[in-house]
Amino acid sequence: MIELLPVEGLPEVRPGDVVADLIADRAELRDGDVVVVTQKVVSKAEGRLAPVSSEGERRRLVEQESVRVLRRRADLFISETAHGFVCANAGVDLSNVETGWAALLPIDPDLSARRIRDRLRARAGVEVGVVVSDTFGRPWRNGLVDVAIGCAGVAAVADLRGLPDAQGRPMEVTEIAVADQVASAAELAMGKASGIPAVVVRGLDPAWLRESSIRAEVVRPYDEDLFR
Amino acid sequence: MIELLPVEGLPEVRPGDVVADLIADRAELRDGDVVVVTQKVVSKAEGRLAPVSSEGERRRLVEQESVRVLRRRADLFISETAHGFVCANAGVDLSNVETGWAALLPIDPDLSARRIRDRLRARAGVEVGVVVSDTFGRPWRNGLVDVAIGCAGVAAVADLRGLPDAQGRPMEVTEIAVADQVASAAELAMGKASGIPAVVVRGLDPAWLRESSIRAEVVRPYDEDLFR
Repeated sequence: MIELLPVEGLPEVRPGDVVADLIADRAELRDGDVVVVTQKVVSKAEGRLAPVSSEGERRRLVEQESVRVLRRRADLFISETAHGFVCANAGVDLSNVETGWAALLPIDPDLSARRIRDRLRARAGVEVGVVVSDTFGRPWRNGLVDVAIGCAGVAAVADLRGLPDAQGRPMEVTEIAVADQVASAAELAMGKASGIPAVVVRGLDPAWLRESSIRAEVVRPYDEDLFR
Repeated sequence: MIELLPVEGLPEVRPGDVVADLIADRAELRDGDVVVVTQKVVSKAEGRLAPVSSEGERRRLVEQESVRVLRRRADLFISETAHGFVCANAGVDLSNVETGWAALLPIDPDLSARRIRDRLRARAGVEVGVVVSDTFGRPWRNGLVDVAIGCAGVAAVADLRGLPDAQGRPMEVTEIAVADQVASAAELAMGKASGIPAVVVRGLDPAWLRESSIRAEVVRPYDEDLFR
């Protein structure tokens, strides 16, 4: 059994706050847990906020955070960030931020996850994984899903190549996006409107708890992608 | 708290088997649970199997199941199915099927989900949701995720428009792909190699338990899509 446990009672996070401490104060973590934290909270704690007083300013921010614009429709940009993520408006987001401000993506979300993991280990004495999640749209399908933009101590991708399927034949499905699915699972326990920005995922396959990186394992190189 | 409970001990499913009965025999379902079943099991029960003895026959099947090929690289087709799904090889899949056979997608996966839901209601006297899941790749990101190809009694998409965020401002993130995230969450409790094709998801927001359809709510119309 896997459990998705919302971390209740987190305060509004401000620049300089130590996210790991806020979580450790409110969750009883165990070895093998994976803590999912939303990008919004991480960006606020890291001070990745920018003033926005007009639509023109918002657009300039989106352009500043984009290395390439893939598609544009009205005020929606689908663009690629410096991290290699393809998402709406390069991750520049005005919701759940104080009026007049926008949250930008963390500069290095894998490093953000690693720092939270290291601090949780030091503070609570537990060996956990951490996923930093964000909410992305997808081509071809309506509705948004949470994905992992950074991870530490949990597999970005689990490689099943060489393992036999239930009939003993080699698997065709080979690489499972573990961290992305952990992010999506956690979102079910958050509820976008209820302001719960952290969830503990308990009971994952211990084989998935290893050093990893979204940037290295999930971001598909430009020249290997069929849709860029 | 949300729980992901694998349904253990399901037998190899054959054409004509009643999937709902196999699950009801092995899971103690409660009102409000959502049962996730893999497409492979549903396709086998519905007899959606085709003989494949050569690479040429596999390719003919892929072409038969495709209404449009978006991209092609070597023997991988990214194509659109009659349902409007965009996925690898139009869902034609040789893994976890007997040698010499391929599984095709159910003809109407929303209807498949509805039949399972209705039968679970009749058999076990419970009001549950059902998601039929399949494993899809994504542009721009490595690793596969489970998504919902059919659903009944659980929201394909939850519309948060008009709801305030935690700061009391209107939400920018508006439509959450609930059924897709439920499918991804369930996959974490399946493990592709271990042959657990059904998971009970317990504790979802009751507001999400409503009549719905992947085809009507998630499949994005051709002319609204920026990447087709």
